[in-house]
Amino acid sequence: MPEHSPSKKALKRQRAELTEALLEAQYELRKANKGPVLVLVSGNDNGGKAEAIYSFYAWLDNRFLDTRAFALPQGIEQRMPHLWRYWISLPGPGKLGFYLGSWYHQPQIRYCRGEIDSEAFRRQMEEIARFEQLLTEEGVALVKLWLQVERSPSGENQSAGQEQTVVMREWGDLGSVDREKVTTSAHLMSALTSTPQAPWIAVPSDDAHYRDIRVGQIVLQQIQQLLGKQNKGPAPTPLLPAPLTRLQQVDYRLTLGKQQYRQQLRHYQARLRELVRHPGFAERSLLLVFEGADAAGKGGTIRRITQCLDPRYMRVHGTRAPTREQRRQPYLLRFWRRVPTPGRVVIFDRSYYGRVLVERVERFCNRRQWQRAYGEINDFEDQLQAKGTLVVKFWLAITEDEQLRRFQARERSPLKRYKLTDEDWRNRKRWPRYEQALNDMLAHTDTASAPWHVISAENKRYARVQTLKILCQTLQQALK
Amino acid sequence: MPEHSPSKKALKRQRAELTEALLEAQYELRKANKGPVLVLVSGNDNGGKAEAIYSFYAWLDNRFLDTRAFALPQGIEQRMPHLWRYWISLPGPGKLGFYLGSWYHQPQIRYCRGEIDSEAFRRQMEEIARFEQLLTEEGVALVKLWLQVERSPSGENQSAGQEQTVVMREWGDLGSVDREKVTTSAHLMSALTSTPQAPWIAVPSDDAHYRDIRVGQIVLQQIQQLLGKQNKGPAPTPLLPAPLTRLQQVDYRLTLGKQQYRQQLRHYQARLRELVRHPGFAERSLLLVFEGADAAGKGGTIRRITQCLDPRYMRVHGTRAPTREQRRQPYLLRFWRRVPTPGRVVIFDRSYYGRVLVERVERFCNRRQWQRAYGEINDFEDQLQAKGTLVVKFWLAITEDEQLRRFQARERSPLKRYKLTDEDWRNRKRWPRYEQALNDMLAHTDTASAPWHVISAENKRYARVQTLKILCQTLQQALK
Repeated sequence: MPEHSPSKKALKRQRAELTEALLEAQYELRKANKGPVLVLVSGNDNGGKAEAIYSFYAWLDNRFLDTRAFALPQGIEQRMPHLWRYWISLPGPGKLGFYLGSWYHQPQIRYCRGEIDSEAFRRQMEEIARFEQLLTEEGVALVKLWLQVERSPSGENQSAGQEQTVVMREWGDLGSVDREKVTTSAHLMSALTSTPQAPWIAVPSDDAHYRDIRVGQIVLQQIQQLLGKQNKGPAPTPLLPAPLTRLQQVDYRLTLGKQQYRQQLRHYQARLRELVRHPGFAERSLLLVFEGADAAGKGGTIRRITQCLDPRYMRVHGTRAPTREQRRQPYLLRFWRRVPTPGRVVIFDRSYYGRVLVERVERFCNRRQWQRAYGEINDFEDQLQAKGTLVVKFWLAITEDEQLRRFQARERSPLKRYKLTDEDWRNRKRWPRYEQALNDMLAHTDTASAPWHVISAENKRYARVQTLKILCQTLQQALK
Repeated sequence: MPEHSPSKKALKRQRAELTEALLEAQYELRKANKGPVLVLVSGNDNGGKAEAIYSFYAWLDNRFLDTRAFALPQGIEQRMPHLWRYWISLPGPGKLGFYLGSWYHQPQIRYCRGEIDSEAFRRQMEEIARFEQLLTEEGVALVKLWLQVERSPSGENQSAGQEQTVVMREWGDLGSVDREKVTTSAHLMSALTSTPQAPWIAVPSDDAHYRDIRVGQIVLQQIQQLLGKQNKGPAPTPLLPAPLTRLQQVDYRLTLGKQQYRQQLRHYQARLRELVRHPGFAERSLLLVFEGADAAGKGGTIRRITQCLDPRYMRVHGTRAPTREQRRQPYLLRFWRRVPTPGRVVIFDRSYYGRVLVERVERFCNRRQWQRAYGEINDFEDQLQAKGTLVVKFWLAITEDEQLRRFQARERSPLKRYKLTDEDWRNRKRWPRYEQALNDMLAHTDTASAPWHVISAENKRYARVQTLKILCQTLQQALK
């Protein structure tokens, strides 16, 4: 028995107290519908990672526990962004989740195998740090445990180097692993991803009883902190409003005659049909984002595109206000669940940009939330593009006057009357505020790899053809 | 141009009227949050199945359309019940969905290839008929289209036999197909699955314009019917209340001393650990159902089982009252989404049996709904078992007096107080009604392959050991 270790009786009492406190905390977490609390369990191979989880199943209400084990990516996982499978597996609020083989797993292996260099490894750690920041900001409590065995099974103390080698054992047959890289990767990981919100916590795991109690205490503390917390973390630097330059450049006079429209529509639709049948497209995928004021012509433009696509491999998603259930989960989750798999097309008729448009203007989220959304959205699109998804974004621009004319026409048309709601009239009054939000969005998310195409949509025919044209050009460029 | 075909102008007018009516119907469907309307598109290879769907994308709001194409089952699909992938893909309410390669596809191929005999084919058609009845009863409108080409591409009329051969082309390389079987399968399919609620409708498809308009009209009619309908279909034969025999046989005096309990618990837990590690279990899966009155000891019994299972391959689901979203979908859907895949264990702490217990007693569903649930649940369990899932069901029985004692103990215990709610006290008053519901459940769902184990749970120790023992026996029997 290690020195200073508590007596068996004291251990038992400690365990009983901990169980009671954890049960209480689990109940409060569930009642408050907060969280999830997500525990990443890493560490030495013989540190007892699975065993540390078993205790929670013995102590707590099993209905609100959720354990996932991730092996190296297989099948479709290999063709999707690294973080995708973790996103879509996130436990719901009120739950206590355990991840074995977390998002650290794969970059570490690849680095130690020499498949990526230290620069790429560093970038991935930075990406992970931003992802974890997003999660904690969105109400997920992250506990990152490193179960550490100081002694080898034979009982001897290990040097630091030996210990790290043990760490690697869980990854199975790694081929030739550079020991120096193992040490470097551990240091980089710790340096780049140990943040105040989600620090790495080492848990000595030689003694299983001590390990279980320590892990229980750490998780308890996290739940209590989550239940008590308002809004931790430093305040973000406020963003300056972007100048209203981009929209002022829109030429609303652009138009297209009926004859020309028919001809060009036919031309670009034929082109698009060819492009999505290109063998190279089977390895890529396409995410189209449509934003624009009410009555800007999003639906009609989208239908001119879907006419060229096979409905079996295509989905159009409308984005409505999040449900109560969805508001309790990280904002981007429902969009991660809808991203296209290879060979497929997903079209968002309104999208995750709602966070920085309607949710900002209508104050459905706070300043802190929409201000960090720009960076989060850029990360989201970057991660998709890194795996071959083309992200093409359109803003259909109309003037206030044109919107009024279209609203009035809708009121008169039996076919389109249903499209007009009281909300549309109310939104109209907030035009200037939407304009500022739009400009900020363009300023912060108009990236080189996923630029915004601002389309003059005052004339529907022009907008439809222009959109198709840009889409064809982008696809052609990508499939070259 | 075929004889009597309408002029181009008349066709255009007809199409415009249809579009308008469909748009209106789609809007009403969405507003009423009814449906989905699910269209199965089958028929000859050159009947234009995909093209018939294209029209809807050109006419309607693309955000509420949902097309799925099912090839022959692959990967995990092969190891799950035939209907599983259709269940978990069901479009939500308010949507218009299209299925290509529906649930008819695979049985037909297998029969025509000679992989199953006509008796097995007939059974599968009957299973499908019951599945479709469930769907239509639960608010899904089913449209089963058979797109029929009378002429071969060269323009000549085909004999009936030739036509059927064309039908088969879509299935790819079928090897040697018995033409007689093709005809038989078509006749059996039509005879066994053309019901008043979901008839097969043949659509002549030589002329694409005519086909599109006809399909549009059929779908329109279905949406309108769904929006207008109250409760169609014949009233079910009322079920007689089952006699209260089963519960009277429970011996509530059964008990187990502390010493014996420890010993037997250890024994059966060790046995269970072994059994789930048995190589044969990787091909099977386990679904455990726990029902019982409040405070019957379900959670504690479940924890004694989960202690033996690897949390990575196991999930415990609590079943709460369905959310508003879930109430609009077929009752069994959320359980289909949770069934175990091979090698895994799913435990329901309360289950789909809630339909015939709490939902019946509390009148959350009507008589018609809970009366047909018995058969639907039996089908559900049969389908799972046919693919190797073991379904083991426990009713933990306690007396009213014992429940009262446990409620009072919970009130006194800080650790368990949270388990007791006002609802628990209210449910207690309905004890006799629950007793009748329980007896009816036992009478109608205690099947040979998935029997109910009624466990005397007056003594917790006895109940835990008894449950483990039965579970071990069932597993051992199955893995032999």
